[in-house]
Amino acid sequence: MKESGRKQGAASPCAACKLLRRRCAQDCVFAPYFPADEPQKFANVHKVFGASNVNKMLQELPVHQRGDAVSSMVYEANARVRDPVYGCVGAISSLQQQIDALQTQLALAQAEVVHLRRFE
Amino acid sequence: MKESGRKQGAASPCAACKLLRRRCAQDCVFAPYFPADEPQKFANVHKVFGASNVNKMLQELPVHQRGDAVSSMVYEANARVRDPVYGCVGAISSLQQQIDALQTQLALAQAEVVHLRRFE
Repeated sequence: MKESGRKQGAASPCAACKLLRRRCAQDCVFAPYFPADEPQKFANVHKVFGASNVNKMLQELPVHQRGDAVSSMVYEANARVRDPVYGCVGAISSLQQQIDALQTQLALAQAEVVHLRRFE
Repeated sequence: MKESGRKQGAASPCAACKLLRRRCAQDCVFAPYFPADEPQKFANVHKVFGASNVNKMLQELPVHQRGDAVSSMVYEANARVRDPVYGCVGAISSLQQQIDALQTQLALAQAEVVHLRRFE
């Protein structure tokens, strides 16, 4: 009776509780950020960080920062699944290289401006 | 007798096995990357990714890629401990902003070069 009541009464579990096969409580820390219709979002975060670490990290943050924390963890987790060796540190290296290249190009262009202005 | 023999015979455990309070086997997957004298290196990786996830991720990689994988995980973990909301994704945003600013400066400098060359 209780079992059937719970089944009828509960909203469908969030993607995290579904994967972890647990009841999705009304105050579930995952539910606001891992809706049932995006199962891969939680799957990668769970694979990389582990549900219990994510739970702990979210609990340690004020509610208004949890959405950003989840977004950055999802980004990191997806990057790690795509590239198990470098993860999103690969993106950091590549951005750093782009910055180096742009700084070189900028220095050259600025030097040329200085040179051309001499003859103005 | 056995206990004392193990204590005498074993090399000092790596930082991971020390934190996890387990015997550091000769083929320990952590030992080459987490030396006993750098306990914080493993502590942060364990806090963020969890020892069992790190173990799994390393086992799934060929040995010659594990060093790079550990370095990138250590980088990510340290960034997440420093900034629990954005982790190393904060660095990515900031590098992306630097790139945008440099591209704007470069476009201006290049436009000025084109303009000045008209009067050469």
